[in-house]
Amino acid sequence: MFARVWNKALVFLMTTQMKRAREGIITPQMMAVAAAENVSSEFILEGVAEGTIVIPANINHLHLNPCGIGRGLRTKVNANIGTSSDCIDVDLELTKLAAAQDAGADTVMDLSTGGDLPFIRKKILAKCAVALGTVPVYEAGVFARLSKGSMIELTADDLFSVIERHAREGVDFLTVHCGVTLNTVARLKQQGRITDIVSRGGALLAGWMVYHEQENPLFEQYDRLLEICAKNDVTLSLGDGLRPGCLADATDRAQIEELLTLGELVDRARQAGVQVMVEGPGHIPLNMIQANIELQKSICKGAPFYVLGPLVTDIAAGYDHITAAIGGAMAAMYGADFLCYVTPAEHLSLPDVDDVRNGVMASRIAGHAADIAKGIKGAAEWDLSMAKARKSLDWQTQAKLSIDPELSLKRHAAQYSSGNACTMCGEFCAMETAEKYLGIKAPRC
Amino acid sequence: MFARVWNKALVFLMTTQMKRAREGIITPQMMAVAAAENVSSEFILEGVAEGTIVIPANINHLHLNPCGIGRGLRTKVNANIGTSSDCIDVDLELTKLAAAQDAGADTVMDLSTGGDLPFIRKKILAKCAVALGTVPVYEAGVFARLSKGSMIELTADDLFSVIERHAREGVDFLTVHCGVTLNTVARLKQQGRITDIVSRGGALLAGWMVYHEQENPLFEQYDRLLEICAKNDVTLSLGDGLRPGCLADATDRAQIEELLTLGELVDRARQAGVQVMVEGPGHIPLNMIQANIELQKSICKGAPFYVLGPLVTDIAAGYDHITAAIGGAMAAMYGADFLCYVTPAEHLSLPDVDDVRNGVMASRIAGHAADIAKGIKGAAEWDLSMAKARKSLDWQTQAKLSIDPELSLKRHAAQYSSGNACTMCGEFCAMETAEKYLGIKAPRC
Repeated sequence: MFARVWNKALVFLMTTQMKRAREGIITPQMMAVAAAENVSSEFILEGVAEGTIVIPANINHLHLNPCGIGRGLRTKVNANIGTSSDCIDVDLELTKLAAAQDAGADTVMDLSTGGDLPFIRKKILAKCAVALGTVPVYEAGVFARLSKGSMIELTADDLFSVIERHAREGVDFLTVHCGVTLNTVARLKQQGRITDIVSRGGALLAGWMVYHEQENPLFEQYDRLLEICAKNDVTLSLGDGLRPGCLADATDRAQIEELLTLGELVDRARQAGVQVMVEGPGHIPLNMIQANIELQKSICKGAPFYVLGPLVTDIAAGYDHITAAIGGAMAAMYGADFLCYVTPAEHLSLPDVDDVRNGVMASRIAGHAADIAKGIKGAAEWDLSMAKARKSLDWQTQAKLSIDPELSLKRHAAQYSSGNACTMCGEFCAMETAEKYLGIKAPRC
Repeated sequence: MFARVWNKALVFLMTTQMKRAREGIITPQMMAVAAAENVSSEFILEGVAEGTIVIPANINHLHLNPCGIGRGLRTKVNANIGTSSDCIDVDLELTKLAAAQDAGADTVMDLSTGGDLPFIRKKILAKCAVALGTVPVYEAGVFARLSKGSMIELTADDLFSVIERHAREGVDFLTVHCGVTLNTVARLKQQGRITDIVSRGGALLAGWMVYHEQENPLFEQYDRLLEICAKNDVTLSLGDGLRPGCLADATDRAQIEELLTLGELVDRARQAGVQVMVEGPGHIPLNMIQANIELQKSICKGAPFYVLGPLVTDIAAGYDHITAAIGGAMAAMYGADFLCYVTPAEHLSLPDVDDVRNGVMASRIAGHAADIAKGIKGAAEWDLSMAKARKSLDWQTQAKLSIDPELSLKRHAAQYSSGNACTMCGEFCAMETAEKYLGIKAPRC
């Protein structure tokens, strides 16, 4: 009897959110997401069942605060952290993790490539209350370099054993560049690009394929990947290894070839009951953003779209959180569901803790602006409350309602103001003038 | 003989760019703008003649580096500086002026409302190599308060005498809220708004009109205004006194009523040979930006559009340079010609020098991203050069080409990198991997 109950419990644990949604079962994770979004659990269930919503929630990530990503939900923000071979400081990365969560990141990715990667990931997972993502090919590459002298010597089994470990340990979503195939590499060569490949994982896999004259194991053994994901309910994040690295390369044949493959892989993941989202560019001129989003949504049958930026110019190193906020706002307005932040350090160095905070804030602003445009529940209401607090010159409430209450309070208090207005206008405050002389009785909707 | 030449020279000096353009005369200012934009002088002449391009260049601003604003030209950026009653430090404002010009602002507005305003303006004009704008009603209001006890006691003659002084001294463009009429105030009252009026000039004039039960002198005596502008070739910047101060008030009847009036005033300015541009919001949700721009362009018959932001959310105090960059990029893509920067201090306090720099940079990024989208000459080429420098890991050239070379160099050098790549990727650099293993021979267009 106990064994039967135990087995049932195990099966319950080991099935995916998607499979349960298709069975019509509302899971605790779906309920948590519904509550956070102020929508019905049924709405979440339907989205998860059809694959337009994912809830990255590895069954082994026990202290997770689950979040939903996809159609009809608030635009989410991811923060990348992690070491590099030049910069190995685990405590610093843990501080960045705390800063990212404190600033309101919805998910975090550990992109470490320097130091003891399993140890770093374990430390990060232990402190990570939001969904955690990784890119297993980094660890596989570093392992090959250490054990065999070169990253290029990694084997398919090396790669899958890393993937299995990440899944077992509780990583909620995995970026896997399954769409970098011999086909896409051939198209890339025919295309001719300025910056070729700027995805680290994409470059390694493409290099491996050309060097070994073999197909990408993540594509060839995609079913093996799906099996691992299904077992632990890991969400697949189909990486865009061929994303453009500059505006001149945007929306080219290599990028779109990969997207077509990713669309097919979305179908196969859904058939296997594995949650899946799709990653996208990158560098895109403003006037191509709408087309990129609509193309992905159509090709990938409404799979959640996770965009990196997009950056709308190449020339703004030092300010790329702003470049990404411009692109991200527009992308999210047209349907992107998930924004990967870009920090002011992008294209220059590994970000520091301030960069992490500024990056999260910029992406949150972009996402929120888009949520207002898309009519996401509660988005415009937040702004309306702020507008009312502004009209009444209520600085405490303004600070409380602002996206960064601490900064808002600090900056307002930093200058001595002689009246109720701030130091920008002083005695020339329009709010006070209008109140005094116009006496407009607005309905204050 | 000498008298005749002298008289001819005087007439030459005293006519406007627009009148000369209509006579088919290419002025030195038009030539300078054509050279800066890399377009023909004829293109500039045609734009100025029909009023789709303005060159704010007061005949008394002798050390001016003239800049063109309008259709087919690079999107321009304005930086506001100036004292308030709470914050009177002329040297600080001069430092901000230098910072704004150093950061690449195309124009500057002196919005001082505290201290000895004529003295401050004189100091600023002496150091201002870019076009300078002012809002004369500020000085008129402050004068009335000092001499008559209240801003509301200002008279039409007070206002016009300030306007004349600004024009004589060399101010290149004047913001005048001529569209705040008894009609628009009535519509405002019927509309019902959350934040009523947030324009300082607009609030003062509307209050004055309601208090004195009289029409706005800037509207009623518009011909007097045109005469002053024509004499010194001052460009009119028709202010949007009824601009929305929050998303909830955006694109309402009060705003559009004012816009209709501004459209008519554009016609009258053009008939008088006075250069004119139109100011616009303000706070606009992302999904209303396109409509706002197209509406203005249609109603105002292609007059250059000068937008403040626009801010795409109300809740991001402390980061409103980012909020404005998002809105500004989209606005400029759809046809706005001139972006008024917003600094991180907006809604909190008077900006400091860092805020000025950050504000200019954010708006420049927005404008440049839009210029690429609009196909402005040279815009995409800049990014292409940067992409090539990135591909070859040439950090010196990357810094030189970046929008803020000093910051770019400083940030890249701040972390120790063991190889050619930056510390973000270290040994895992995609550029190096692709080069090493793929050997793609791109055409490098």
